[in-house]
Amino acid sequence: MAKAQKVLILNGPNLNLLGTREPEHYGSLTLDAINQRLQTYAETHDIELRIQQSNHEGAIIDAVQEARTWADGIVINPGGYTHTSVALRDAIAACAVPTVEVHLSNIYAREAFRHTSLIAPVCVGQISGLGWIGYQLAIDYLRETSSQ
Amino acid sequence: MAKAQKVLILNGPNLNLLGTREPEHYGSLTLDAINQRLQTYAETHDIELRIQQSNHEGAIIDAVQEARTWADGIVINPGGYTHTSVALRDAIAACAVPTVEVHLSNIYAREAFRHTSLIAPVCVGQISGLGWIGYQLAIDYLRETSSQ
Amino acid sequence: MAKAQKVLILNGPNLNLLGTREPEHYGSLTLDAINQRLQTYAETHDIELRIQQSNHEGAIIDAVQEARTWADGIVINPGGYTHTSVALRDAIAACAVPTVEVHLSNIYAREAFRHTSLIAPVCVGQISGLGWIGYQLAIDYLRETSSQ
Amino acid sequence: MAKAQKVLILNGPNLNLLGTREPEHYGSLTLDAINQRLQTYAETHDIELRIQQSNHEGAIIDAVQEARTWADGIVINPGGYTHTSVALRDAIAACAVPTVEVHLSNIYAREAFRHTSLIAPVCVGQISGLGWIGYQLAIDYLRETSSQ
Amino acid sequence: MAKAQKVLILNGPNLNLLGTREPEHYGSLTLDAINQRLQTYAETHDIELRIQQSNHEGAIIDAVQEARTWADGIVINPGGYTHTSVALRDAIAACAVPTVEVHLSNIYAREAFRHTSLIAPVCVGQISGLGWIGYQLAIDYLRETSSQ
Amino acid sequence: MAKAQKVLILNGPNLNLLGTREPEHYGSLTLDAINQRLQTYAETHDIELRIQQSNHEGAIIDAVQEARTWADGIVINPGGYTHTSVALRDAIAACAVPTVEVHLSNIYAREAFRHTSLIAPVCVGQISGLGWIGYQLAIDYLRETSSQ
Amino acid sequence: MAKAQKVLILNGPNLNLLGTREPEHYGSLTLDAINQRLQTYAETHDIELRIQQSNHEGAIIDAVQEARTWADGIVINPGGYTHTSVALRDAIAACAVPTVEVHLSNIYAREAFRHTSLIAPVCVGQISGLGWIGYQLAIDYLRETSSQ
Amino acid sequence: MAKAQKVLILNGPNLNLLGTREPEHYGSLTLDAINQRLQTYAETHDIELRIQQSNHEGAIIDAVQEARTWADGIVINPGGYTHTSVALRDAIAACAVPTVEVHLSNIYAREAFRHTSLIAPVCVGQISGLGWIGYQLAIDYLRETSSQ
Amino acid sequence: MAKAQKVLILNGPNLNLLGTREPEHYGSLTLDAINQRLQTYAETHDIELRIQQSNHEGAIIDAVQEARTWADGIVINPGGYTHTSVALRDAIAACAVPTVEVHLSNIYAREAFRHTSLIAPVCVGQISGLGWIGYQLAIDYLRETSSQ
Amino acid sequence: MAKAQKVLILNGPNLNLLGTREPEHYGSLTLDAINQRLQTYAETHDIELRIQQSNHEGAIIDAVQEARTWADGIVINPGGYTHTSVALRDAIAACAVPTVEVHLSNIYAREAFRHTSLIAPVCVGQISGLGWIGYQLAIDYLRETSSQ
Amino acid sequence: MAKAQKVLILNGPNLNLLGTREPEHYGSLTLDAINQRLQTYAETHDIELRIQQSNHEGAIIDAVQEARTWADGIVINPGGYTHTSVALRDAIAACAVPTVEVHLSNIYAREAFRHTSLIAPVCVGQISGLGWIGYQLAIDYLRETSSQ
Amino acid sequence: MAKAQKVLILNGPNLNLLGTREPEHYGSLTLDAINQRLQTYAETHDIELRIQQSNHEGAIIDAVQEARTWADGIVINPGGYTHTSVALRDAIAACAVPTVEVHLSNIYAREAFRHTSLIAPVCVGQISGLGWIGYQLAIDYLRETSSQ
Repeated sequence: MAKAQKVLILNGPNLNLLGTREPEHYGSLTLDAINQRLQTYAETHDIELRIQQSNHEGAIIDAVQEARTWADGIVINPGGYTHTSVALRDAIAACAVPTVEVHLSNIYAREAFRHTSLIAPVCVGQISGLGWIGYQLAIDYLRETSSQ
Repeated sequence: MAKAQKVLILNGPNLNLLGTREPEHYGSLTLDAINQRLQTYAETHDIELRIQQSNHEGAIIDAVQEARTWADGIVINPGGYTHTSVALRDAIAACAVPTVEVHLSNIYAREAFRHTSLIAPVCVGQISGLGWIGYQLAIDYLRETSSQ
Repeated sequence: MAKAQKVLILNGPNLNLLGTREPEHYGSLTLDAINQRLQTYAETHDIELRIQQSNHEGAIIDAVQEARTWADGIVINPGGYTHTSVALRDAIAACAVPTVEVHLSNIYAREAFRHTSLIAPVCVGQISGLGWIGYQLAIDYLRETSSQ
Repeated sequence: MAKAQKVLILNGPNLNLLGTREPEHYGSLTLDAINQRLQTYAETHDIELRIQQSNHEGAIIDAVQEARTWADGIVINPGGYTHTSVALRDAIAACAVPTVEVHLSNIYAREAFRHTSLIAPVCVGQISGLGWIGYQLAIDYLRETSSQ
Repeated sequence: MAKAQKVLILNGPNLNLLGTREPEHYGSLTLDAINQRLQTYAETHDIELRIQQSNHEGAIIDAVQEARTWADGIVINPGGYTHTSVALRDAIAACAVPTVEVHLSNIYAREAFRHTSLIAPVCVGQISGLGWIGYQLAIDYLRETSSQ
Repeated sequence: MAKAQKVLILNGPNLNLLGTREPEHYGSLTLDAINQRLQTYAETHDIELRIQQSNHEGAIIDAVQEARTWADGIVINPGGYTHTSVALRDAIAACAVPTVEVHLSNIYAREAFRHTSLIAPVCVGQISGLGWIGYQLAIDYLRETSSQ
Repeated sequence: MAKAQKVLILNGPNLNLLGTREPEHYGSLTLDAINQRLQTYAETHDIELRIQQSNHEGAIIDAVQEARTWADGIVINPGGYTHTSVALRDAIAACAVPTVEVHLSNIYAREAFRHTSLIAPVCVGQISGLGWIGYQLAIDYLRETSSQ
Repeated sequence: MAKAQKVLILNGPNLNLLGTREPEHYGSLTLDAINQRLQTYAETHDIELRIQQSNHEGAIIDAVQEARTWADGIVINPGGYTHTSVALRDAIAACAVPTVEVHLSNIYAREAFRHTSLIAPVCVGQISGLGWIGYQLAIDYLRETSSQ
Repeated sequence: MAKAQKVLILNGPNLNLLGTREPEHYGSLTLDAINQRLQTYAETHDIELRIQQSNHEGAIIDAVQEARTWADGIVINPGGYTHTSVALRDAIAACAVPTVEVHLSNIYAREAFRHTSLIAPVCVGQISGLGWIGYQLAIDYLRETSSQ
Repeated sequence: MAKAQKVLILNGPNLNLLGTREPEHYGSLTLDAINQRLQTYAETHDIELRIQQSNHEGAIIDAVQEARTWADGIVINPGGYTHTSVALRDAIAACAVPTVEVHLSNIYAREAFRHTSLIAPVCVGQISGLGWIGYQLAIDYLRETSSQ
Repeated sequence: MAKAQKVLILNGPNLNLLGTREPEHYGSLTLDAINQRLQTYAETHDIELRIQQSNHEGAIIDAVQEARTWADGIVINPGGYTHTSVALRDAIAACAVPTVEVHLSNIYAREAFRHTSLIAPVCVGQISGLGWIGYQLAIDYLRETSSQ
Repeated sequence: MAKAQKVLILNGPNLNLLGTREPEHYGSLTLDAINQRLQTYAETHDIELRIQQSNHEGAIIDAVQEARTWADGIVINPGGYTHTSVALRDAIAACAVPTVEVHLSNIYAREAFRHTSLIAPVCVGQISGLGWIGYQLAIDYLRETSSQ
């Protein structure tokens, strides 16, 4: 593949607090530290990453809609909107860009309301509980399948 | 009625993608094309339409609240927020403006989570599944009842 | 369209009591008065209406089945059978005639058992809460789409 | 009260089989025997009884609607329609005639689906499990309250 | 039957407030007034009534257990314990005395939690919504069936 | 068995549309064609078939009740009433005639509301998904067991 | 059809106890006796039967998978695995061999947990409550449709 | 405590309409009037109040996150987001600032969907139904416990 | 207000164990210590407190009924009866005395069965999770509103 | 262990009727006979038993609370309160005395509402269905573990 | 009893890991150590124990079926199959051998899915939460009742 | 890390049919082809893979238990047992080996019963919907975290 692959990393509400917030669930790395690792990883694999975070459901939907014009794949951690946002689900479904849902913590080992993802059915797949490495694996997946 | 009737057409998340998104559910007209048809229709019936779309729940609530100061009726397609927004429901209930809920697709013929509208109980009524004509029928209803 | 469009208006149980029964839910017009308005409206739009009412589930199913032989569209208010009749649902699904479900009152603002329509998933769409005008809007919809 | 009180005794599906059907639930008296006892009782209390039975939901609804024109009270045993007929409920609610629901067997000691009566909320009250005497007690109630 | 029939009238919590409490649900007669009417009625039919009321679940259970030694029938209005007391249910089931459950208001026309009676399945039957007359009808039932 | 066995074939709502209605669910044979095959089969096995179809719940209940006077077995396809008719269930339970429930399509591979049959618990058994042959197998069953 | 049809009869857990176990549910024939009758029947109709029984879910799945290589049809009574085995369901779905589910007893007249079959949606159809004859009818069905 | 205590008063959607909106639920004081009373109260108790209102879920989450840098306590009335926002819940849980949830109306005396607060489990406590005084009591609580 | 306000503090089952029982939920103050603090607080605000505790549901109902004759307000912590007592709910509803429900622990952060209060809908409001201060705040509320 | 172990045997509502009440569930021994057997057994194992029975929930809670001051273990059969008493659960949880729940009948083989014990989660364990021997086994358990 | 009693001790999946697995739930004794204690106990009471463990559902069912030929009683700890195996339930029900279900941990104090035992309704009774002593008590029960 | 990492790849029921079974869900690669790719990948990363597949729940549990003695990590695709096996869950929980759950298809985009994994809460995490690459990513995860 001559052209670099372009991937949107999209983080939802409260992920900007990573490293300070409940480290037993989310680890002790800050979001900046994770982003840096992913950027480094992406560069060595000829992938162009754009990374966004917002606490606003509407802003996340806007970002998904915009990704239709430039991205080859989306890696999304919708945070709390995972379980409540039909609007975000509709945005991903309307978007032809392959999307992988990532959760840092194992959402199936937590409160019952976290076991249902409205987003998952319209994504290619889901990675849950593998910490920040989950993002990297999602990028790997997009890389592997885009070259097919 | 000497004074022109004023109606807000309020579209929720992802409706800006109309025409490109899942045409089997939503038809192949763009939102602009629908809006133009509605404007033409409104002009010939002496109705003043203002048309808004947003992906942001808060912005839609703001628009409903502002409509209290100028609108005689609201036609709302809340998109994904139909099924999840108590806050939007409260805004419509707090607003004395008669409101008709419209859905392009037949929400009762789709996924189970689309069968429940939090908005419907505080609207005058609901039109579902009649495509873009649903908006026009909702305007008709407001016109017919406003002249009573 | 040279030939007049033919539409069945089909009313279910207790709608014969309209105007006398719970006017806060159903308005004060009698069924005859509504039918007259719809006939007048239909004549001015070159539509042939046939109007039936029955309290008998089987008779309503019979009417739907017969409509297959002559009608271009059905406007049905199934009354209490909306929520309980799989048999009526099957009749509409088996029938190739486009059908619009109409309710005078906003069924979503009433008892919980009225929120589920077994009929809606097999209709083109549903109009609820817009009073007798709902029938007229349903006729409009059938007229608009039949000429396409 | 100078004028005789008029009461409709309305029996639903399968009650015509009484005396032959599952006597452990319904007793061994035939419907005719019960009716005769009730007629005798009514005559001695200056009440005019009209007694109907039908297996057809629509016919029962018709009878309730007609009772609006002549009856001072209704005693209804809706049989299997107790648990499934929104249409019958709507008929009773639309009817200004005070109605008492009667069940021969104790419906709360039987299958779970018999524990919910769609009819009960729109009746004055319900008598369940007291056998054919339940009809007589319902007539007593209508008599006592009509003379107030 | 040469010997007088003996019946326990057993009233549960808050029924001592009758006449002052929510008259739209329970009527305006005091419990004393009702009891007097029932005593008068009983005397004219050669029935010996004993009447008890308690706010204590345990005291009501004690009364049911004691009735085994002297009563031919029980008329019970368990008030709020209707919906919550397995212990009272077990007491009635353990007791060979025929028991009729009575509710002044139509419990099926009120809050959902009042629609389920834990007591009903172990009683002979239930009378609901017929006001204080319900007690009298229950006595009638016990009288009619005891003489068989 | 010297005397011919008598069997009622009873078809519920919309089965008169067979062959024209949703052939992916119900096959392409008309009801008449099926009936003819069953009559031919019955004649060669010395069985007397009577075949009825109705869209009316009450008429189906009437037919079950009448079968008590002449039939040795019933083969019933209750169509949409399968899932909603307590009254039909009660009719079959009240009837001492062995009854086999038949469905052309596999009701367990369709919408969730079709998975529950109110009729099945009071029938001898159920055959579902085996097309028109299901009727023939049900006749076979009645034949095999009647000769025991 | 020149070549004999080959059918697997596959019985699940506890069916080896037939004839000794709860005869009110399962009849008094032993599994051997049933198998002999089926073998006799099969021989007279030019069908080759292979009959297996196991208490082991895995062994039943193995048998279904092996049937892919030789069988024209499967008649399966999954016993208790009917209600709990997604793995068996997946095996049948993965297998192109037409499969009929059979239950000796009427599973819809027993405990609630027996009313749901995980297997039914992936079978051609289901026969329930017709005793050992159910197996024979299932073979008949496979025979009738294989010759088409 | 030498240093003044700092408290964030955070109001969610539609609370800006207070005084005009459904006074039977929310009272007739405007939000400004309430805020003024709280400011006066705070000043006399040496508390520094900052007061915010937004209809935007994201903006409310932003405000909670910012409070981590300056506030000693939060008093939050999340309005409609109370029942739908996992994202807001996560923000409060991630925030070390003690938070009291306040509702003007008694949410347990209203629609069922208002009975569940996603926010309550991560707050210190909840005050519901005590009108604007609820805010003042929440401030009192923070004051009493901060001085410990 | 010249006359002192009279308030009943009513504590339900197991609150007599306070200070010794599960301090992580209920704190380490004994009930006596709390009562003393409340008495001191009441005296300085010219309020007359009567304080009762019982493990008996009936005794708590009796106390609520008696409060009708002397109290201006009730502060109730119903303990375990919060979640199970319809009878207590009815007593409070029958009582015209304004009642505030108080819980020491945050019941919404504990077991699911503690999330539903049968009492809350008939109280003015609820305070939960604010420890013993919750009682004091409830007294404050009654004081503030009684002087209006 | 030099000092005798002290155990409370606590029986809930209706257990005083043992031997006379539904012997198919509870056996034919009276409570006195069981108590005598247990006393004899206890004496031979150097255990001091105190045995109480009450129909009053509050009295049972009182007894549990008092046991904190003298008992080494509790054997409780809460009867009907098993399924309804949060207050009793809280009492046992607040009490440091090891408690074993005993049921004479197998509660899992009876009505669905008997399958859930509110008490079990706060007891050491539960013995169900082993008749009066269950009490003796519970005493054995307390004896075995107290000597560790 | 001249002949020694024979009892099968049957342990399900993962019980072979006892002593190493989650000791907070299951204690620190290995299965071998428990078995040795039970054997010693059995010998001193003239009971012949056979002890089996398997991770295979089918093997456990096989063992139950074989026990019909030799055992006087079964003590079963079905481990994870407790909650999922209809097939094991059917095996026990088909088996005339009295069976006691034992769980080391208190299954009612753990995850919700462990609160429902499919096995319990077909056993004589259940002992839960009493550790390895539970097995011994179950043996005691079988011994006590076998000698009756 | 000097020593090679050892990983168990454990495949559940029907995965041996991969490549032939429902390719729209599972892709067209055979299990052998996937295994070969994983072996190649493992060798180049100095990982020792052992790969097992079984249709037997018990055999899968055995394999998990054995892995405790040799493996540094487990990658498990439990197939249909994902949704039904408490026993497998218990085995993984009892096992100290870090385990990643993998599904080829997106289980959240399929039937509702596939949305709940009993296994997920006791695994480190879950990868779903990423096809055979999911296994490779799971190996990557184990490799990355083992070297920490």
